[in-house]
Amino acid sequence: MRRWNGWGDEAVEFALHDEALAFLAQRIGAGTPVQDATLEQACARITPSRLPPDASVAGLIQTEAEVRLRNALGQSLPDWLRLRYGVIETAPDGVAYPESGDEVRTLLAYAQRHNVALIPQGGGTSVVGHLTAPAGAQPVLTVNLSRLRQLHYLDTEAQLATFGAGVLGPDLEAQLRARGYTLGHFPQSFEYSSLGGWVVTRSSGQQSLRYGRIEQLFRGGVVETPAGTLRVQTFPASAAGTDLRELVLGSEGRMGVLTEATVRVTALPEYEAFHAVFFPDWQAAETAVRLLAQAGLSLSMLRLSNPLETTTMLALAGHQRLIGMLESYLALRGCKQQKCMLMLGVSGQKRTAKTALRAALEITAPLGGVHVGRYMGEKWKQNRFRNVYLRNAAWQHGYAIDTVETAVDWTRVGSMMRTVEAAATAALAEYGERVHTYTHLSHLYAQGASVYTTFVFRLAGDYEQDLARWRTLKHAVSTAIVSQGGTISHQHGVGTDHAPYLAAEKGELGLSAMQALFSHFDPQQIMNPGKLLP
Amino acid sequence: MRRWNGWGDEAVEFALHDEALAFLAQRIGAGTPVQDATLEQACARITPSRLPPDASVAGLIQTEAEVRLRNALGQSLPDWLRLRYGVIETAPDGVAYPESGDEVRTLLAYAQRHNVALIPQGGGTSVVGHLTAPAGAQPVLTVNLSRLRQLHYLDTEAQLATFGAGVLGPDLEAQLRARGYTLGHFPQSFEYSSLGGWVVTRSSGQQSLRYGRIEQLFRGGVVETPAGTLRVQTFPASAAGTDLRELVLGSEGRMGVLTEATVRVTALPEYEAFHAVFFPDWQAAETAVRLLAQAGLSLSMLRLSNPLETTTMLALAGHQRLIGMLESYLALRGCKQQKCMLMLGVSGQKRTAKTALRAALEITAPLGGVHVGRYMGEKWKQNRFRNVYLRNAAWQHGYAIDTVETAVDWTRVGSMMRTVEAAATAALAEYGERVHTYTHLSHLYAQGASVYTTFVFRLAGDYEQDLARWRTLKHAVSTAIVSQGGTISHQHGVGTDHAPYLAAEKGELGLSAMQALFSHFDPQQIMNPGKLLP
Repeated sequence: MRRWNGWGDEAVEFALHDEALAFLAQRIGAGTPVQDATLEQACARITPSRLPPDASVAGLIQTEAEVRLRNALGQSLPDWLRLRYGVIETAPDGVAYPESGDEVRTLLAYAQRHNVALIPQGGGTSVVGHLTAPAGAQPVLTVNLSRLRQLHYLDTEAQLATFGAGVLGPDLEAQLRARGYTLGHFPQSFEYSSLGGWVVTRSSGQQSLRYGRIEQLFRGGVVETPAGTLRVQTFPASAAGTDLRELVLGSEGRMGVLTEATVRVTALPEYEAFHAVFFPDWQAAETAVRLLAQAGLSLSMLRLSNPLETTTMLALAGHQRLIGMLESYLALRGCKQQKCMLMLGVSGQKRTAKTALRAALEITAPLGGVHVGRYMGEKWKQNRFRNVYLRNAAWQHGYAIDTVETAVDWTRVGSMMRTVEAAATAALAEYGERVHTYTHLSHLYAQGASVYTTFVFRLAGDYEQDLARWRTLKHAVSTAIVSQGGTISHQHGVGTDHAPYLAAEKGELGLSAMQALFSHFDPQQIMNPGKLLP
Repeated sequence: MRRWNGWGDEAVEFALHDEALAFLAQRIGAGTPVQDATLEQACARITPSRLPPDASVAGLIQTEAEVRLRNALGQSLPDWLRLRYGVIETAPDGVAYPESGDEVRTLLAYAQRHNVALIPQGGGTSVVGHLTAPAGAQPVLTVNLSRLRQLHYLDTEAQLATFGAGVLGPDLEAQLRARGYTLGHFPQSFEYSSLGGWVVTRSSGQQSLRYGRIEQLFRGGVVETPAGTLRVQTFPASAAGTDLRELVLGSEGRMGVLTEATVRVTALPEYEAFHAVFFPDWQAAETAVRLLAQAGLSLSMLRLSNPLETTTMLALAGHQRLIGMLESYLALRGCKQQKCMLMLGVSGQKRTAKTALRAALEITAPLGGVHVGRYMGEKWKQNRFRNVYLRNAAWQHGYAIDTVETAVDWTRVGSMMRTVEAAATAALAEYGERVHTYTHLSHLYAQGASVYTTFVFRLAGDYEQDLARWRTLKHAVSTAIVSQGGTISHQHGVGTDHAPYLAAEKGELGLSAMQALFSHFDPQQIMNPGKLLP
């Protein structure tokens, strides 16, 4: 069963071994485990439903406390604090699980008639507060789309698949794989995030270099909006005015409910491999990945860890003896304290993939890149969706883990990394706490890269205090991001947590244009109020 | 000097030789040359300027008849008929050539104050009526952006170049080439079309397979709108809400004046080659190009002519003996009456390009593809921007040439081609005229292809009659396109000529959302009224 107050399945544990804990203790001090609230305690905080009764929605809406609790929050750190400490400040007044576009339209009509706020929910994995019910007198209905999960149509000639938008990653891939196809969209949240959620938050997967971001994969669909049904047709390309797909992408539930999405699929690759290459220092590594991204090679993934992330990953990996041997070998080849690890993926036709790998290694070698083969890469692949479980394990030992991510042109990638890390590392000094901070570049473009920074800090063991620590840290890093000209999000979206920083990149005129657009589809502004726009 | 009533430079002629004329005469009858109006006659049709005087724009606006005539129309067939027959129904009341964003803002403020309609003009090559001054009492000002042409900034690390948006293709490429870079955007209108025009009409170039459509190349910029200045920042990617670039793309002058654009550039390719492959028939050829597009090879161009276009191109090529030898050889290899010609481009690193070519030929060979080498391809490359001149030559012999283009998923490419051709071929039966019709696929995607159909028909020698013929033909083919589920434009935009067919693909809700968006930036609706939206 899925955890109600953490990541993933209750049956899956990803333990932190003693060496890893010693590493963390040395960096930021030993953690003190926290007493979690029980499910019963949290449910007791759910206040009676305020949804007005209406015959039109009879049987469609559930109002039990546990259902509402399980649909109340996402996976952001403040969401975790609320769940772990049992401080459920707001929750939806009811949850509907529609099974058709008709039922969604019925729910929308009900919400409009009674001025009920409506929050569409996919997999509930948002890390920026997309799902929080607003405080205030307005009743809130969450529309959970998990029952809209069927593959409606697969067009193998045009390589298009139409799904119910609530389908989760593994279900979607299983339905496609049975027919020899893949979408190839693998964000770290893959196991629990949904197709519709990817689209409305502009998600990006680990192999976006091969398959593209969800923007490139999403080709059309159906959005039920308060103003009516918007059908976005599929075309390979079009010069006919505004691309309606772009109005849906990144709309974060503000324009309506995406019920159906058509995506580009491809035949399962004949061959796939992940290789590791180490560099002596950041400057060489950053230059190498920029040249790789600009060479236009057929790579499927590039993921570069900075020195501290490399050290952290090797420390957390276990297999101390093996890692020790690797580090000795790397030191002999010039990759010592400042070494950076690059994961490099290739997939597709075997010949093409091998040619691409060879061409890539010809670019990395002159920059001191040491190719250590497939072992580390295959390990990474095995654990690609298990690393998220690390957050559960860290919590059990009294540590919080959070991340921020941005994207910026190459000219500013290095300074962005340094500025965000400096801001994070110093952020909790006022609390007498240190922050363990490390960074990777996980999505590389000819123009620039995403800069993804992870923080580990100690829990105080108190909801208010831990929320204050998080707020201080989040404000420090978000301010650093916008001051360096980065986007406030490369792949997580805006939600509530990033909304205060959006004006810095869109400008007031850009923001008001977005507002005008959403108001056109939702004149009463009942759709996911308070998210995306401040 | 640029022709005032036709395509291109007055010094350039692309004659139709006798065999070509015989071919056309056999297909649709001999043409009768038409008497063109003189420049003086056309200028005499320009009525006095109605622009209200205002000290703020002193010296900024020109009102001479010839300047207004030369900025009155684009390159659509109705525009040609107006110019050739000297029937100038509407023209702007004045033309400004701003040299800065400040001057553009001054002109916008003037237009708002006096309720003057404002038409932004780039290179004046629109083929769908983007530039026509609306009829009626409202004075019209055309803002010609040709003086905003400088390369402001080249960031070689992020591979971004910022230009004044009025820069024309050859000027832009010359400024980049001097520094070792290229944009790689080569629409057939390249010699006279502008960067800003490409962006606001969603243009696509001949080598879009390598460089991407202008949507992918356009990374940010500045739009002066009646509601204020919109600055679109450059990010490699972003998940932060609506992508403001997408509001600018395809806006066709409705939201404001794009004054500056930042585009992705790449180092000049080490190697470039174009090869020709012939197929025995359409079915084999279409299958081959679909497989090529879906194989993800590093090709720079795929352009497939159907049997009648292949025959037409060979008939118009001249070099009868050489073509005869080629046809004999092809016939021996199975490519006879129904043969289809594929132009295949590769560019980039020499090794990568050659690998891609080899992989491509491995896909085409089992489908009966006969590789005839580089000669035809290099000829095509030499003439890639000269073919547009054919229209001048045909006119001199009493023929009109026009084109329509759409894009559609692979499942419907073949039926789209047949339906559009059938509609065109029969369209002028009521006038007792035949239409010579042929098609190519020039932009290929994994999902589908653009379908680009050319028509040749005889001129009646009278403005009203020829306009009626064109309207009948245009309506027949546009109806065929939308009935087959194609977009009304893959690369030319909407303007006035396609506006009636836009609702078929956007729906009423989509159209009204576009209207709401443009009204936000332009509450008085003075920007290019009557274009894009019906």
